[in-house]
Amino acid sequence: NRYDFPRFRLFSEKKTNHLPATKSSAALTSLLMSPVFQDVHVMIFIGFGFLMTFLKRYGFSSVGFNLLLAAFGLQWGLLTQGLWHLEDGKIKVTIFKIINADFSTATVLISFGAVLGKTSPVQLLIMTVLEISLFSINEHLVAQIFKANDVGASMIIHAFGAYFGLAVARVLYRPGLRNGHDNDGSVYHSDLFAMIGTVFLWMFWPSFNSAIADPGLTQLTAVINTYLSLAACVLSAYAISSLVEHKGKLDMVHIQNATLAGGVAVGTCADMAIGPYGAMLIGFVAGIISTVGFKYLTPILASNLGIQDTCGVHNLHGMPGILGGLAGIVAVALGKKEGGDAAMQAAALASSLGFALVGGAITGFIMKLPFWGQPPDQNCYDDSIYWEVRNPISHK
Amino acid sequence: NRYDFPRFRLFSEKKTNHLPATKSSAALTSLLMSPVFQDVHVMIFIGFGFLMTFLKRYGFSSVGFNLLLAAFGLQWGLLTQGLWHLEDGKIKVTIFKIINADFSTATVLISFGAVLGKTSPVQLLIMTVLEISLFSINEHLVAQIFKANDVGASMIIHAFGAYFGLAVARVLYRPGLRNGHDNDGSVYHSDLFAMIGTVFLWMFWPSFNSAIADPGLTQLTAVINTYLSLAACVLSAYAISSLVEHKGKLDMVHIQNATLAGGVAVGTCADMAIGPYGAMLIGFVAGIISTVGFKYLTPILASNLGIQDTCGVHNLHGMPGILGGLAGIVAVALGKKEGGDAAMQAAALASSLGFALVGGAITGFIMKLPFWGQPPDQNCYDDSIYWEVRNPISHK
Amino acid sequence: NRYDFPRFRLFSEKKTNHLPATKSSAALTSLLMSPVFQDVHVMIFIGFGFLMTFLKRYGFSSVGFNLLLAAFGLQWGLLTQGLWHLEDGKIKVTIFKIINADFSTATVLISFGAVLGKTSPVQLLIMTVLEISLFSINEHLVAQIFKANDVGASMIIHAFGAYFGLAVARVLYRPGLRNGHDNDGSVYHSDLFAMIGTVFLWMFWPSFNSAIADPGLTQLTAVINTYLSLAACVLSAYAISSLVEHKGKLDMVHIQNATLAGGVAVGTCADMAIGPYGAMLIGFVAGIISTVGFKYLTPILASNLGIQDTCGVHNLHGMPGILGGLAGIVAVALGKKEGGDAAMQAAALASSLGFALVGGAITGFIMKLPFWGQPPDQNCYDDSIYWEVRNPISHK
Repeated sequence: NRYDFPRFRLFSEKKTNHLPATKSSAALTSLLMSPVFQDVHVMIFIGFGFLMTFLKRYGFSSVGFNLLLAAFGLQWGLLTQGLWHLEDGKIKVTIFKIINADFSTATVLISFGAVLGKTSPVQLLIMTVLEISLFSINEHLVAQIFKANDVGASMIIHAFGAYFGLAVARVLYRPGLRNGHDNDGSVYHSDLFAMIGTVFLWMFWPSFNSAIADPGLTQLTAVINTYLSLAACVLSAYAISSLVEHKGKLDMVHIQNATLAGGVAVGTCADMAIGPYGAMLIGFVAGIISTVGFKYLTPILASNLGIQDTCGVHNLHGMPGILGGLAGIVAVALGKKEGGDAAMQAAALASSLGFALVGGAITGFIMKLPFWGQPPDQNCYDDSIYWEVRNPISHK
Repeated sequence: NRYDFPRFRLFSEKKTNHLPATKSSAALTSLLMSPVFQDVHVMIFIGFGFLMTFLKRYGFSSVGFNLLLAAFGLQWGLLTQGLWHLEDGKIKVTIFKIINADFSTATVLISFGAVLGKTSPVQLLIMTVLEISLFSINEHLVAQIFKANDVGASMIIHAFGAYFGLAVARVLYRPGLRNGHDNDGSVYHSDLFAMIGTVFLWMFWPSFNSAIADPGLTQLTAVINTYLSLAACVLSAYAISSLVEHKGKLDMVHIQNATLAGGVAVGTCADMAIGPYGAMLIGFVAGIISTVGFKYLTPILASNLGIQDTCGVHNLHGMPGILGGLAGIVAVALGKKEGGDAAMQAAALASSLGFALVGGAITGFIMKLPFWGQPPDQNCYDDSIYWEVRNPISHK
Repeated sequence: NRYDFPRFRLFSEKKTNHLPATKSSAALTSLLMSPVFQDVHVMIFIGFGFLMTFLKRYGFSSVGFNLLLAAFGLQWGLLTQGLWHLEDGKIKVTIFKIINADFSTATVLISFGAVLGKTSPVQLLIMTVLEISLFSINEHLVAQIFKANDVGASMIIHAFGAYFGLAVARVLYRPGLRNGHDNDGSVYHSDLFAMIGTVFLWMFWPSFNSAIADPGLTQLTAVINTYLSLAACVLSAYAISSLVEHKGKLDMVHIQNATLAGGVAVGTCADMAIGPYGAMLIGFVAGIISTVGFKYLTPILASNLGIQDTCGVHNLHGMPGILGGLAGIVAVALGKKEGGDAAMQAAALASSLGFALVGGAITGFIMKLPFWGQPPDQNCYDDSIYWEVRNPISHK
C-alpha cells in the first residue's frame, strides 16, 4: 500500500489507535482547515482589536473589550447556531462550527466600531447577545431558505453588522458630542498600533472569504479573488485619499480602513467565476467608495442624521457590504455561479439590511435603558472610566 | 489512479524526484504539522516576548532577551532531547523535534518572567542551560517511564517553568526592592505592546495544546477543548478583575495574564474526552484562581516569602499548571483517557514540581555567584544597563 | 474504499460538486501551500512594514508605503512573471503564482530600505515598476537558462534587492545629509514597533525559504535548515553586538537586523543536503558579517562612497545574500544538490549582482528627474510631508 500513513512516528513515541481517523477525509479536511481557522481567529482578535486602538486614550478598551466581546460572542454563537444544526439533540462542535462562531462575533465587533467609546461593557454584552441571535436567524434564512451565496459574508456579516451598529448609534445619539470631543482622535503611536490591526486584517482576508467555501478549487478561487480585490483596493484608496486631502497628503484614517473595503466587497462573489478582472474591479470601486465616504459622508451622517459612527464602519463595512451584495446579484445573473438565483441573492441582501436596521434599533432602545452604566459625555473615549490607568502618556 | 498527486506542476517548472515523498504519509503529516509549528513559534517569540514588554523601561530586554534565550534554548533543547531519541547515534531533526525544542524553551521563558528585570543576560543563559537539561530529564520520566498524559504540558512546561522560576527568584531575593522600584510598572503604550503578546498567545494556544497530540480526531479534540477553555476563562478573568478592583474597574495586569490561564489549565486534559462543559469548567476556574492570585497572593509572596515574581508567573503558569495536573488526574480516574493511569498522572505532577523546586533552587544559587554581572538594585527593570538607549520616552 | 474523502460534510450543508478536486493532488498541494503563502504574506506586509518603523517620525510612511508598494508590486509581479509562463495566451493565477508575486515585491521592499525617508511615493512606484521588471528577467535567466538553485532567493531577491537599492541610493546621494539629520533616528517605542517586524520576519523565514521547494521532504529540509541557521545567527549577532559596542551593551539596530541575516544567507542552500552543521555555520557567519557591517561598514559607505543606506540593507540583505550565493556554489560543488552545477550557480550570482547594479543605477537616474516630487533635505525622514499628522509624539 503506497499510502502508508502509519510510517511516521510521533514525538511522543506512544502507540496510537487514531491513525485510521487521520487517513479519513474528515480528519484530513479538518486539519487542512485548522490554519484557515487560525487566520480568521487572528482577524477577530488582533485585526478588529488593534484596528480600533487608533483613539489616543481608548486603546485598553479597544483591544480589551474586543477580547471580551469576542470570547463571549463565540460561545453564544456556538449555542445559537448550534440550535439550527442539532445532531441527536446535541450541538456537535467541529472546526467548521468554531470558524462560524468566530464569524458570528465579527458582526458584533463591526457594530462595536460604530459605538466605540460611548458605551459601557454591560451595554456591549447586551448588544452581543441580541445581535448574534439575530445574525443566526438571518444567516439561517439566507443560507437555508433563500439558498443564497455569500461565502465571504458581505451581506450577512459586513452589511448586517454595520447597519445594526449604525441603528444602535442612531438611537444612542449624543447631542453633547455634536461638536466633537477632545479624546475622539489619535496620536502618532496610536495610529501605528491601529496599523497592526489593518495589516493583519488585510493579509488574512483571503482566509476569511474562503473559510466556508467548498473545499478544493472553489476555495482556492475565493483565496485568489480576495487577494486580487484587496490589492486593487489599496491602489484606489491611496489615490483617492491623496486626491481629496489638503495638498495631496494621505490620511491615516483612510489607509487604516478603506484599504480593507476590497475584502468586504468581494465577499459574496469570492467563490464565483468572476475572474481576476472582476475581482479587481470590485476592489477598486470599493476603495473609492470607502475613502469618499470617510471624507464626505461620515460628517454628514453625524451632523444631519444624528449617526455618530466612531470608526466609520459605514464606509468600511456598510457601503462595501452592499456593494458586495449587489455584485453578487449581478454575478449570479451573469451565470458566474452554478445553481445561483439572482432573486434569492437580492432577497438575502434585503433580509440582511432589514434584520440589521430593525434589530439594531430595538437593541439600541434596550441599551438606552438607564441602568446599564452608559458613560456620561465627558468620559467618552476614555479608558480611565473602566480601567486602572496608571501612567497615561501625555498628549499635547 | 484517482490520487494523481504528480498532476500539479510547481512554479519552478523543474522536474522533481521527490513526489513519492509527498504521497507518503510521513511528508504529508509533516506538512500538515508545519502550520502548527509556526503557531507555536509565534507564541514563543511574539507571545512571550511582547507579553513581558509591559514594563515601561524594559521593553528592549523583554523582547530582545526573549529572542536570545529562545534561539539559544531551542538549540540546546534539540541537543538534550535528541540524546533520548538517538537514531544510529545521530539526532534526527524532524518537524516534531523542532516543535519540541520550542516547547523546551517555553519553560525558560516562563521562568524568565519571574526574574524579569533583575538578572543579567549571562545569568539567564546559565538558567537556560540548566533548566532545559532538567526539563528534558523530567519530560523523559513523565512520558516514557510514567507514561503519563500531558499533551498541552500543564505539568511539564507550565508548572515546571513557573516553580523553577519562583525558586530562582527566592534565592535571588532582593531586600532592596521590598518597597518597589520606580521602573517596576507600566505606561500606557507599554501595556498595549504587552497586549500584542497576550492576544497572540491566546489565539494560538489551541495549536500549542494540540501540537503533539495524536494526529486526527484526537488532535482536533485538543484544539476545540482549548478554544472553549480559553473562551470561558476570559469571562471569569474579566468578572473577577472587575469584582476585586476599586469601583469595578478592570486591571490590565489581570487581562494580560489571567485570560490565558485557561490555556494552561486545560493542557493536560486537552486531548481527553472531557467534553465542552469539562473544558469550559476548567477554563472558568483557572480565570478565577489566576485573577485572585494577582490581586491577593502575589503581594503576600513578595512580602512574606521573599518571592518577587515580576510577571506573576505563579498566577498564570504555576497555579493553573497545578490545576491542569489535578484535572488530568481526575479526568483519567473518570476514564476520560483510554489507557490512562491516575496514579501515574499524580507521579508526573509530583515529579514536575519536585524537579522544578529543587532544580530551580540549585540553579538560583549558581546564578547568585558574584561574577555573572547581576545588576544592582537601582538599575533593575532598566534597559539602559544592557542596551544603547538613545531617546527614552519621557514618563511623568 | 478507505480514502473516503466525501464523508465529511461542510458547515454550509450544501451539496458540492467539487469533491473530486479535493481528492486530486493539485488541490491538496495548493491547500497545503496556503499556510506557507500566508506566512510569506505576513513577512511582506508586517515584517518589512514594521521593521522600517524604527525611525521616530517615519512610521506612517514605513508601514503605509510598504503596503502601497507591495500591493502595487504584487499585481505588477503577477503580470511580468505571468508573461514568462503563459498558458493558452493567458496568465493562470495559482497559489504558486501569488507566492511568487509576493516574492517579486520583496526585492522592492528591500531596495525601499536603502532609500527610506528620502524618496516620494511617486519615485517609489517608478522604482517598483522597473525593479520588478528586471527581477522577472533575471529570475527567468537564473531559473530557466542557468537552471541554478536559489530556493530561498539569497541571490535573486536579497542580493539583487539590496544592490539595486544601493545603486539607487548612490545616484540619489544627498550631500546635505552628510552630517546626519535630526529625524534619522529612533525613539524608544519606535524601536519596539520595529521589533514586531523583526520577530515576524525571523519566525516565518522558514516558510519563505521553503515556499517554492519541491514538495515533501525537500521542503521540510528547507524549513529545518532555515530554522537552524536563524537560531545560530541570533547567537553570533548578540555576541558581536555586545563585543563591538561601548561597555558591552547591545545595539537595537543590530538586533533588529543582524539576527535575520541567517535567513538570508542560508536561502540558496536551504533545500540542499548541507546538514544541521552546515546550516548553523552559515547562520553563525552571517550574524557576524551583518553586525560588523552595521558597526563599521555602513559609516564608511556613507562618508566615502556616497551611499546613504537608511536601513542598512547592505548588512542585512547585501552581504548575507552574497554569502548565500557563495555558500550555494560551494555546496553544489561538494555535491550537496543532485544535478547542481557550480558554474551555473556562479553565473546566477553574477547575473543577479549585474542586473542589480546596472538596473539600479539606471532606475536611480530616472528617479532623479526633477518632477517626481522628491522631498528636500530638511523634510527627509518626516511623515508630515506626505501624511496628515495630527498629534506627533514629543521627542526630546
